[in-house]
Amino acid sequence: MSNDPSEIVTRFISLLSSKDIDAAATMVSDDFEYDNVPVGKAFGAEGMRGVLTGFFAACEELEWVIVRQTSSGDSTSGTVLNERDDRLKIHGQWRSLPLAGVFEIRDGKITLWRDYFDRTTLGEAMAPPA
Amino acid sequence: MSNDPSEIVTRFISLLSSKDIDAAATMVSDDFEYDNVPVGKAFGAEGMRGVLTGFFAACEELEWVIVRQTSSGDSTSGTVLNERDDRLKIHGQWRSLPLAGVFEIRDGKITLWRDYFDRTTLGEAMAPPA
Repeated sequence: MSNDPSEIVTRFISLLSSKDIDAAATMVSDDFEYDNVPVGKAFGAEGMRGVLTGFFAACEELEWVIVRQTSSGDSTSGTVLNERDDRLKIHGQWRSLPLAGVFEIRDGKITLWRDYFDRTTLGEAMAPPA
Repeated sequence: MSNDPSEIVTRFISLLSSKDIDAAATMVSDDFEYDNVPVGKAFGAEGMRGVLTGFFAACEELEWVIVRQTSSGDSTSGTVLNERDDRLKIHGQWRSLPLAGVFEIRDGKITLWRDYFDRTTLGEAMAPPA
C-alpha cells in the first residue's frame, strides 16, 4: 500500500471511473462519510454503493479526470483535495460535471469523500437530449 | 513576500473576507482569471472588482473560513486547493456558502481563482428572509 495519500485517492477515483464499486468499497473506512454537498450524505461502503449503483447504471461510460490534486500528511493521517472533470456518457452523449473533491485518509483508508458541484449542472448532465 | 503559495492564498482570502478589494487586487496577475464555475468567468483585477463590488455591498459582513487547504509547488509556480465555508451576513442573518477553491500562483501573483459551489445554495444565501 502506498504511503502517499494522493496515490490512494488517484486509485480510488480510477476504480470508480471503471465502475468497480466492489474494489473502491474496500478502500473506505467503517465510518466513511460520502458527502455530495448540494444533494446529501451517505455513510459506509454500503451507503456509497447505494448512491452510486443507480448512477453508474444510468451512465453508459464514465471518465473521471483529475485536473489538479494536492495533498498534505501521509496515509496514516492525510488530506487530499482535487479538481476533477467527471465526464459521463449518457443517452449516447458525453457530458461533463466539473467539481472539486475533498478526501481524508486515516490508517490507509478513506474516511471522507466530499464533492462540491452545482446540482443544476448535474441534473442537466443526466437529462435526456432535448 | 512568502515563498509558500498556501500563505499567499490565505492572505488573499483574508483580505477579501475584510472586503479589501483594493489590496486583494494587487495580488493578482494581469492575466488573472476569476471563475465562479456555475455562474461564469471574469478577467483581470477589474473583472474581479466588477463581480465582487456588488456582492460585497449586499453583504453586511463576511467571514470566509478556510476549512482545509493543501498546495504543491512554490510561489514561482504553485497550486493551492482549499475547502471553505464562505459565511455572509445579509438581511441581518448569517448564511453559509460551502465551496471549494482552486488557485494557481505564478511569479508571486495569483493567476487563477476558481470556486466550485452550488448556484441554488448561493441564491438561497442571498435571498431575503422568508
